[in-house]
Amino acid sequence: MANEKKKSTGRARTQKTEKRADDKKIIKKNTVTAKKFHRKSTVKKPPKKEPKPAVRIAFLGGLNEIGKNLTVFECLDDMIILDCGMAFPDGDMLGVDMVIPDYTYLEQNKEKIRGVVITHGHEDHIGGLPYLLSKMKVPIYGTPLTVGLIANKLKEHSHIDAADLQSRNAGDHIKLGCFDVELIHVNHSIPDSVGVAIHSPAGTIVHTGDFKIDYTPMSGGMIDLSRFAQLGDEGVLALLADSTNAGRQGYTPTEQKVADSFDTLFRRARHSRIIIATFASNISRIQQIINCAEKNGRKVAFSGRSMINYMNVAKELGYLEVNDSTIIDIDRLKDYPPEKIVLATTGSQGEPMSALSRMAYSDHRKVEVGAGDFIIISANPIPGNERTVGNVVDELLKRGCEVVYESMYEVHVSGHACTEELKLIHSLVKPKYFIPVHGEQKHLRKHMSIAQSLGMDRKNIYVGDIGKVVEISEEGMKEAETVTAGKVFVDGLGVGDVGSIVLRDRKHLGQDGLIIIVASLDVYDGHVISGPDIVSRGFVYVRESGDLMDEIKELSLEILDTCSRKNIHEWGVIKNKLKDDVAKLINKETGRSPMILPILMEV
Amino acid sequence: MANEKKKSTGRARTQKTEKRADDKKIIKKNTVTAKKFHRKSTVKKPPKKEPKPAVRIAFLGGLNEIGKNLTVFECLDDMIILDCGMAFPDGDMLGVDMVIPDYTYLEQNKEKIRGVVITHGHEDHIGGLPYLLSKMKVPIYGTPLTVGLIANKLKEHSHIDAADLQSRNAGDHIKLGCFDVELIHVNHSIPDSVGVAIHSPAGTIVHTGDFKIDYTPMSGGMIDLSRFAQLGDEGVLALLADSTNAGRQGYTPTEQKVADSFDTLFRRARHSRIIIATFASNISRIQQIINCAEKNGRKVAFSGRSMINYMNVAKELGYLEVNDSTIIDIDRLKDYPPEKIVLATTGSQGEPMSALSRMAYSDHRKVEVGAGDFIIISANPIPGNERTVGNVVDELLKRGCEVVYESMYEVHVSGHACTEELKLIHSLVKPKYFIPVHGEQKHLRKHMSIAQSLGMDRKNIYVGDIGKVVEISEEGMKEAETVTAGKVFVDGLGVGDVGSIVLRDRKHLGQDGLIIIVASLDVYDGHVISGPDIVSRGFVYVRESGDLMDEIKELSLEILDTCSRKNIHEWGVIKNKLKDDVAKLINKETGRSPMILPILMEV
Repeated sequence: MANEKKKSTGRARTQKTEKRADDKKIIKKNTVTAKKFHRKSTVKKPPKKEPKPAVRIAFLGGLNEIGKNLTVFECLDDMIILDCGMAFPDGDMLGVDMVIPDYTYLEQNKEKIRGVVITHGHEDHIGGLPYLLSKMKVPIYGTPLTVGLIANKLKEHSHIDAADLQSRNAGDHIKLGCFDVELIHVNHSIPDSVGVAIHSPAGTIVHTGDFKIDYTPMSGGMIDLSRFAQLGDEGVLALLADSTNAGRQGYTPTEQKVADSFDTLFRRARHSRIIIATFASNISRIQQIINCAEKNGRKVAFSGRSMINYMNVAKELGYLEVNDSTIIDIDRLKDYPPEKIVLATTGSQGEPMSALSRMAYSDHRKVEVGAGDFIIISANPIPGNERTVGNVVDELLKRGCEVVYESMYEVHVSGHACTEELKLIHSLVKPKYFIPVHGEQKHLRKHMSIAQSLGMDRKNIYVGDIGKVVEISEEGMKEAETVTAGKVFVDGLGVGDVGSIVLRDRKHLGQDGLIIIVASLDVYDGHVISGPDIVSRGFVYVRESGDLMDEIKELSLEILDTCSRKNIHEWGVIKNKLKDDVAKLINKETGRSPMILPILMEV
Repeated sequence: MANEKKKSTGRARTQKTEKRADDKKIIKKNTVTAKKFHRKSTVKKPPKKEPKPAVRIAFLGGLNEIGKNLTVFECLDDMIILDCGMAFPDGDMLGVDMVIPDYTYLEQNKEKIRGVVITHGHEDHIGGLPYLLSKMKVPIYGTPLTVGLIANKLKEHSHIDAADLQSRNAGDHIKLGCFDVELIHVNHSIPDSVGVAIHSPAGTIVHTGDFKIDYTPMSGGMIDLSRFAQLGDEGVLALLADSTNAGRQGYTPTEQKVADSFDTLFRRARHSRIIIATFASNISRIQQIINCAEKNGRKVAFSGRSMINYMNVAKELGYLEVNDSTIIDIDRLKDYPPEKIVLATTGSQGEPMSALSRMAYSDHRKVEVGAGDFIIISANPIPGNERTVGNVVDELLKRGCEVVYESMYEVHVSGHACTEELKLIHSLVKPKYFIPVHGEQKHLRKHMSIAQSLGMDRKNIYVGDIGKVVEISEEGMKEAETVTAGKVFVDGLGVGDVGSIVLRDRKHLGQDGLIIIVASLDVYDGHVISGPDIVSRGFVYVRESGDLMDEIKELSLEILDTCSRKNIHEWGVIKNKLKDDVAKLINKETGRSPMILPILMEV
């Protein structure tokens, strides 16, 4: 196997001088950023060269979007899936709970799929699994914590038969058809995260997964840079790497920074109850909260179902070090003085139903906050959430709480690599081709220019999109055909039954409300037997708009009478006339355009 | 009058050393930051001391919110209004176009109101005027550009009779009852901005308006720090100051920084068409665009109605210096090569209907963008707009445009003072009392701690809210009664007819859609004559959910039949039964909760 080749040639690499271009872009070529890693190289030529097969990479999610990561690798007659995530809905996807990829392409190729490999236990990497598994049976591979979190998630989807969950460790190789998938330890905001080296007949493809470089992480040790370097020396056909923070200069600070900030803040808040909000899945952060609490003789309680879930799984599997006596149930808060308590909670994004929001708006059944509470929001707002987070902070301040938020102190570090870390990975892996993944267009483009700044040729970089397939072989990299891909909306129990028409109607109803005109007409001559009645919702406060409602009613009656007199009986025609004329009247009087629904009944 | 006292005492001020506290807060006391301003002081005691009257300040907007600024000052029998703004709706104010203050308190005190003084021509300071003027006739005072912009705005509200608009210049005093309102030149992101010194029988109150300190602004000269210093030496009872950027450390850079960045970017984009998006009202920025275009031999076209409006008023009144030949109509773009064009456009906040959004989504009737376009977004996203701005950037990148956004280069500076500028104003004005204004709770609190760090006593600072009235006299500052205040929604032509019930319904309809159950019942025994028909909108795509619709219909019929058999004729009871049972069925089948509207007709 690839990682068994250990012969070092000791060949020194040329270190070129940094050049500073006019526009301040730093052009670095082959700069060895971390010198401590020994460089290896093997010169190996196959005795008789047969053309290698091509590997195809199909993107069903994670490009031009944040979340719902799903990449398909294909070679010969085998397919493997890397990650199977969900995404949170955008503001215009009204009422949608979750977005998953379109699985049509996978269903069409069911019998070729050898397995799903998951890089880590975050929702944007595992959240789609219940929906995929309801369509096909396929083994799932991941590290122990990842598999534990998947098992926990599948419990909530009882209709799915026992899934084939396979636990593997970083360093393990998974044989899946012609693929050999090697798991490589990386740092991220959840323990037990891996990147992969996919060894295929076409060559080795490295996918970093979500990663950052942390020389002093809370647990699990630093990312296996050494293995990335070895792979680089052995020759990597293509690199796919996390672009989330490609627009951020420098390095993501170590999680240790947060520990230092917590120390300072715990000292400052020594007479207060401390409440810390963070991502439910950020087990490293929860470990820090526990450490700091234990050091300061405080108990820890949890609020928020998802956080309790993550915490329990992590604790059970040994990913959380905690004294049995440290954690208390939230109902026991009153048994301790405030200064002996830390409350860890969800809601760091200001989500309306989350524990922290409920506290802020006095809607939490078990916790009331006020003066004497010291609240730390240990997370940055995800773009789009700034406003809701800001509102929660304001409410907490109004109640007299002290609140630490945003970048006031280093109470949060990202889980993703910034520019310098990306440069290091590129320089170690030295791929022939590069495909930026996990990011919106702006992130992918930035990542592309980082690769170019390291000397990679533009034509060896592929900026893709979902539904695109790229084919890589010895002859080169080219875009192949496109496959079905898209956003499938999950709303309640329904998967895919909410589409663009339903969303358009929701938007219309939500913005402008509704006017219903209902009347019973004689089945023979169409004269009005009952009604027309006018019902409105979300339009105006009707009690104060009686005149307008009367006008609408009169106009509708007039139209119905006219149609009846003129022997117009096509209901489509009558309804359109009602819609148009009432819309005109309402727009003239109010400047608004509610949805107008004429309902006619035959009696 | 106050500004005529020019006697300098030459008294030197003690300059205390900076102390750095443990928590890194810089405590500065009486530090004279700008030494070039001569300090004056007049010792003046009235021969016989009679108790001075109190001044009352009522806040109808601008506290605990960004926008809809409106403050009322009251003394003896006189009231004056400072600013009359609107606010943009929050995301949960569905369909609302604009938010204005509740004017009830003003209507109740109509005959006491001596005038409205406007500090500058931004919407959050003038946007409410048409609605206030439709309720009362009152003279409006402002600087020439401000008055020009108000006149332009009132044109769109033709139902308002000719308003009494009074143009005054910085330095002028306006006598309004017992008040003498002095306009003081300040820097901001629109020319001709002023703060005010309100000289009242109770003492002098300084309100900064929106301001920043720019030693090298585009036009109009720097803020009149000298006058603020004089007032401080004469004695200021209370300071009300802009808190928008109280959370930002340091200084807001000068507008000149943007000029430098534009120079660099124009050079870089010398072969491209340049498109610059900024706030329509940012006339200084538009001046910069024009300057840079003229220097580089480019023509300037404008896209976006509001920008053209602002530009025309500013040009007419001499606030824009531009050669006649520089500005071209957007229809003439094709007459010039791309590298001879700058297109200034609205849409810097990613607003869906704005010119830039339309360009990004290929929906602009006159401009098509693509490779060869160099686009500069010369604005920062307002909190809550990050996502929409990001989406527009992504779309532009996908079309092959080069895009400069966010803090990539200094292409935008704020219009508001940061911490060090606020410290300067506080230190010059040396008020007895301080009230932070213009900001959310977090901004007001930060501003409060800035004042405290300068040595002000907590009890001399008032953090207020809309509807609160504070009374200041020689005896002290105290909270008086509360007055009616709130958010009034403007939706289309309607003002105040959309309230919490309508918004709740809109939210419900927008999130979950609607099911209508309509049936005609016999007027005597209640048996079903026609229907029940099921109509849905925004719920599911009906063609694919026929079974569910049939189930709902059957259940409804069953309920109606049962009611008729059991002689239940109270429609309230029947409707509730329909609602409850159908809701249960739908929730069981789909996990959703659409609005259910039973409509029964008597035949």
